[in-house]
Amino acid sequence: MGLKFEIVARDAGTQARAGLLHTPHGVVETPTFMPVGTAGTVKGMTQEQLESLGVQMLLANTYHLYLRPGHEVIRELGGLHRFMGWPHPILTDSGGFQVMSLKGLGRVTEDGVWFRSHLDGSSHFLTPERAVEIQLALGADIIMTLDECVDYPASHETLQRAVKLTTRWAQRAKDFYEERVSGERGPALHSQSQRPPDLQHLTPDTSPAPGPQPPSLFGIVQGGTDKILRRESAEELLEIGFEGYAIGGLSVGEPRQETYEVAEFTAGLLPEERPRYLMGVGTPEDLMECVARGIYLFDCVMPTRNARNGCVFTSEGKLVVKNARYMRDEQPLDPACACSVCRRYSRSYLRHLFVAGEMLAGILATHHNLHFYLDTMRKIRQALEFGQFESVRSRVRGGSGTASPRREVVPESQADEPC
Amino acid sequence: MGLKFEIVARDAGTQARAGLLHTPHGVVETPTFMPVGTAGTVKGMTQEQLESLGVQMLLANTYHLYLRPGHEVIRELGGLHRFMGWPHPILTDSGGFQVMSLKGLGRVTEDGVWFRSHLDGSSHFLTPERAVEIQLALGADIIMTLDECVDYPASHETLQRAVKLTTRWAQRAKDFYEERVSGERGPALHSQSQRPPDLQHLTPDTSPAPGPQPPSLFGIVQGGTDKILRRESAEELLEIGFEGYAIGGLSVGEPRQETYEVAEFTAGLLPEERPRYLMGVGTPEDLMECVARGIYLFDCVMPTRNARNGCVFTSEGKLVVKNARYMRDEQPLDPACACSVCRRYSRSYLRHLFVAGEMLAGILATHHNLHFYLDTMRKIRQALEFGQFESVRSRVRGGSGTASPRREVVPESQADEPC
Repeated sequence: MGLKFEIVARDAGTQARAGLLHTPHGVVETPTFMPVGTAGTVKGMTQEQLESLGVQMLLANTYHLYLRPGHEVIRELGGLHRFMGWPHPILTDSGGFQVMSLKGLGRVTEDGVWFRSHLDGSSHFLTPERAVEIQLALGADIIMTLDECVDYPASHETLQRAVKLTTRWAQRAKDFYEERVSGERGPALHSQSQRPPDLQHLTPDTSPAPGPQPPSLFGIVQGGTDKILRRESAEELLEIGFEGYAIGGLSVGEPRQETYEVAEFTAGLLPEERPRYLMGVGTPEDLMECVARGIYLFDCVMPTRNARNGCVFTSEGKLVVKNARYMRDEQPLDPACACSVCRRYSRSYLRHLFVAGEMLAGILATHHNLHFYLDTMRKIRQALEFGQFESVRSRVRGGSGTASPRREVVPESQADEPC
Repeated sequence: MGLKFEIVARDAGTQARAGLLHTPHGVVETPTFMPVGTAGTVKGMTQEQLESLGVQMLLANTYHLYLRPGHEVIRELGGLHRFMGWPHPILTDSGGFQVMSLKGLGRVTEDGVWFRSHLDGSSHFLTPERAVEIQLALGADIIMTLDECVDYPASHETLQRAVKLTTRWAQRAKDFYEERVSGERGPALHSQSQRPPDLQHLTPDTSPAPGPQPPSLFGIVQGGTDKILRRESAEELLEIGFEGYAIGGLSVGEPRQETYEVAEFTAGLLPEERPRYLMGVGTPEDLMECVARGIYLFDCVMPTRNARNGCVFTSEGKLVVKNARYMRDEQPLDPACACSVCRRYSRSYLRHLFVAGEMLAGILATHHNLHFYLDTMRKIRQALEFGQFESVRSRVRGGSGTASPRREVVPESQADEPC
């Protein structure tokens, strides 16, 4: 395994673990939360602000970057880190989740998924190989296999079909990745004719991926809320072998307790000494609960998207700062928060900025929400180190009881999700 | 005079002066450029970023803040400095320029100007007294008298009428200001019945203005490009007596050379030892040329609005970074610039952010443009201090030959001005 991961602390009573993930662009302390930088930017944040917030790893969306500015442009410019001015770890998704969520614009076949661009309607075909190829061009530290994520609820047949397809795609992604990465190290091990038929039309590409060393490839466990299918999926992916494992297909509408239960069950099927990543989850409370269930990596649009909608996370729960009741409220967003927004600006000012449609509204609320999430993760890591996890867990109450949304489809700016 | 202003350096060959303006919220080094914080925020910038850029004084628009969140709300919250989290100098305009620019929504009478809110169509009446009252509630360091600004070109009669009305309004503003400010120091000198008839309906307001000491009131010279009228206007305002003098009615469409000539002529009519403020001008080159003509204070939406439209100022002229030619351009916006944007981000990344409609596009471009403006002013001040003004003047070539726009009317976000 090229991706070194070490566990540095274990909670005695739960599956919570603190670890260090050694990526080509630096060490990530786990458990960690990755803010979502959809199109190569976390909306409203400068990279300097992300650094000052203590962001350790970003997620960027392959679908968006593939369409605009194009992965080849980014490769030519030295890869995503250089393009964005972000010399720290990045994880890219496969693009599959976005593509399959395009209402009426995506169609899954055995070979891959046909989709139409939400920008110009142009037709594209994403295969497991192509998803790896695009991500290698972007040059992230961690890349994901193409998987089939199905909606909730789904029939057993649908879930089973998705699990089996995900496994076949995972094998193809792994094969292609091995060929490409070993191709960078020397002559290709496999000839062009050995590649799957749908790739024969691709121009052979021998450009090296950007970055100091090749990205690590993670597989994604599917199976919905069906434990038998989750076990099948996990076992098949383990058989193929990946540097880390993600749990997909959750936070798609199922009750929160099911999210927790399936996350825990699935994490238990995956090796403790490999990174476990729960995709698209959730509230600060969700993060805490899923850390306790053995998850190390998280991403979610919730802190950033909610912020732009005027909804902030505080130590006392969510607060919709746009509301008229805050017109004369001189308190900070969260009196218990030490972030630079809470040290300087009042709810009344934030409320005014939202009502006036000012950019600074989203900027300040995003900053605060990311601070809240990252601070929660810092507290969790510290608690694990000092054997205080359970006491911190009982104090984290940042979210309401609503289900958490998945990462956005397209375009994020048009989302109008209630807080 | 309550507003201390001292000249610390004089250029031998021109009217350029370096000075120190002692406001209630700190000392401003002149010549200085004030970024425009229309609704109590410089669009896209945090107050921390403005501080790091070296912003010494902000301009905020009374019209916008009066309508939303309302000056009374801001007074209750301790004034604009506290509301915004900006403990440094602020200048507010009178609101007149915005009101009179409302297409078909404003009507000037002897008493004041009727206007309809661009937000909800509600009807409002702004008088010279009311403009002072609102600004006292906001609690800026420098406030402006209500004036009548006319379009270019205008007939002699129109200009003359505007000058005379501006003088009468200036006197009323001064009287009201004196009464109100002395009212804060002890019993009011004038009874309610002595106030102009249009103010009788106002609830007597004895709330003190926020802030450590009362704002200073500036008069505004009008007269278009007519030197005889400019002289008349200046003399009448000097007779009334203000703590500083602005030159209004320029940058409204007249040729740039006329702007320079009238600015120089008018500045020459005003005392050297009082702040001279040229409203709504202009490009970096305009600033340099008008400093040479005796101007100490400037404001303009150009660096911020142009930035949001993808147009940046560089040491080699303007650059429209949205253009396709920058798709693969790895250079910074301005290779000669030392700002944090140019140190980290490429034209290709900025271009991508603009094309994708990302908030970070406007944020980074605004940061760069403000740096460019403020750095130009810093260089001018240093040059004055070291007797090098002419050599610096010859090197400043930041703008194109187009006329500079006035501060925006409403709403700025709808502006679609060519770069």
